[in-house]
Amino acid sequence: MSSPLINGVPAERIGITDRGLHYGDGLFETMRVHDGRIPLWTHHWQRLSRDCRRLGIEDIDAAALHDEVRRVSTGIERGVVKIIVTRGSGGRGYRPPPVQDQTTRMVVPYDWPDYPAAHWHEGVTVRLCRTRLGRNPALAGMKHLNRLEQVLARREWDDPAVAEGLMQDDRDRVICGTMTNLFIVKGGRLLTPPVRECGVAGVMRGLLLETAGGAECTVSLEDLKAADEVLLCNAVIGLWPVRRIEERVYPVGAVSRSLMARLRSDGLLDD
Amino acid sequence: MSSPLINGVPAERIGITDRGLHYGDGLFETMRVHDGRIPLWTHHWQRLSRDCRRLGIEDIDAAALHDEVRRVSTGIERGVVKIIVTRGSGGRGYRPPPVQDQTTRMVVPYDWPDYPAAHWHEGVTVRLCRTRLGRNPALAGMKHLNRLEQVLARREWDDPAVAEGLMQDDRDRVICGTMTNLFIVKGGRLLTPPVRECGVAGVMRGLLLETAGGAECTVSLEDLKAADEVLLCNAVIGLWPVRRIEERVYPVGAVSRSLMARLRSDGLLDD
Repeated sequence: MSSPLINGVPAERIGITDRGLHYGDGLFETMRVHDGRIPLWTHHWQRLSRDCRRLGIEDIDAAALHDEVRRVSTGIERGVVKIIVTRGSGGRGYRPPPVQDQTTRMVVPYDWPDYPAAHWHEGVTVRLCRTRLGRNPALAGMKHLNRLEQVLARREWDDPAVAEGLMQDDRDRVICGTMTNLFIVKGGRLLTPPVRECGVAGVMRGLLLETAGGAECTVSLEDLKAADEVLLCNAVIGLWPVRRIEERVYPVGAVSRSLMARLRSDGLLDD
Repeated sequence: MSSPLINGVPAERIGITDRGLHYGDGLFETMRVHDGRIPLWTHHWQRLSRDCRRLGIEDIDAAALHDEVRRVSTGIERGVVKIIVTRGSGGRGYRPPPVQDQTTRMVVPYDWPDYPAAHWHEGVTVRLCRTRLGRNPALAGMKHLNRLEQVLARREWDDPAVAEGLMQDDRDRVICGTMTNLFIVKGGRLLTPPVRECGVAGVMRGLLLETAGGAECTVSLEDLKAADEVLLCNAVIGLWPVRRIEERVYPVGAVSRSLMARLRSDGLLDD
């Protein structure tokens, strides 16, 4: 596997003054690599650049980043490449430097996560996490580096038979998984919780909203129990049907199977 | 100034796989150094070790950390030393490694921030930030590395005449400054907002609660306007009286003057 790149240079270490470390002052993208290419590159780039604007990280070098992603992805048949972009280095204090240092761009290759093929074919077992998502519209939707809520939620279980945990906000609304977005199928409609107050606007979620007739709708625990199908998605796995949440068992239904077939034919899902 | 120490070794760079960078999966302490010593070391250490337990960061080496803080502080007449502790390095994914790698301990010296002496003698001008604090009891009170809310709030103003910004939660309760805790004086009582849902349980806040008869009480904007005195505190500045919040002007009152005199005599406030 090739080396990580930091601002275009092969490197394994970043400066101790980086604001990504001190404050989580940055963003990331986790991207599926297939035959040396990132099939959803345009979507990842669009989200990253939009969220940079939201955080006021202005000077990201798009051409350089794209080139770095190409260099790191080349030769990877099946894997994951992660981008981290931070506001760069700075002194002590929350205030960004008046004259911004160079943004830090990191591009890091990872092995393909060896999820069992059954996750796609038979569906996954999911738990409800105790850890809640705090609501803050100023941060919601972004894939920023402040991810302690997800870390605490993911620490709640060790059982390898449980593939994912669902998280609720403080109003008991179901929002998303720790690393996936959630869709439910109800009366033939494909619905996903809004991410205007918390949660991440995932790239695969966006694709399903755009191209598969999905719509946003708040989801309660009762809605989840009453759903005909439940599915989880992100840019790495594509889509997992949910077989079980706590005591409730779901079928791998027609909508899930049809969406998986489409993603497969578009090269966005392998198994 | 001496070099930063990373796990006891002089170094300026950390590994790109550190979970502090990827997820903000760690904590920090910002400590005032006076004549080579940290006057509030015990308080900082108590908070850090308590919050490590809350996050499940178990194996922090207390003796090594204390020794590193001593090495970095030695020879600093007046300055700041920052500790960052992270869950260490890990692979991709929110789940902490089943066998935890070594915790990363960073100890970094900084120059004393040159705040004007008038901040202590005449009081500071403060604004109300638009950026709100999300509420999450699982994270509240800790000085963790997820600090984007503070970064966004601090980006709201450039005017050097404004020393601090106050932040509210989504219920319009006033919680704290971006880098300070808030106390108000009302009818002779010293009151500070609870930090059970958001905000940081600052070391100086804890000291004032323990030793100056302070009490916790929710604070609305109306309470703030009606207060006899308002003051801001943290372990670096000690205490600043507030002279002005938006249009409301406050006196540097008897309680503030008395508390500053005590902090001065205890070596916790210089100016």
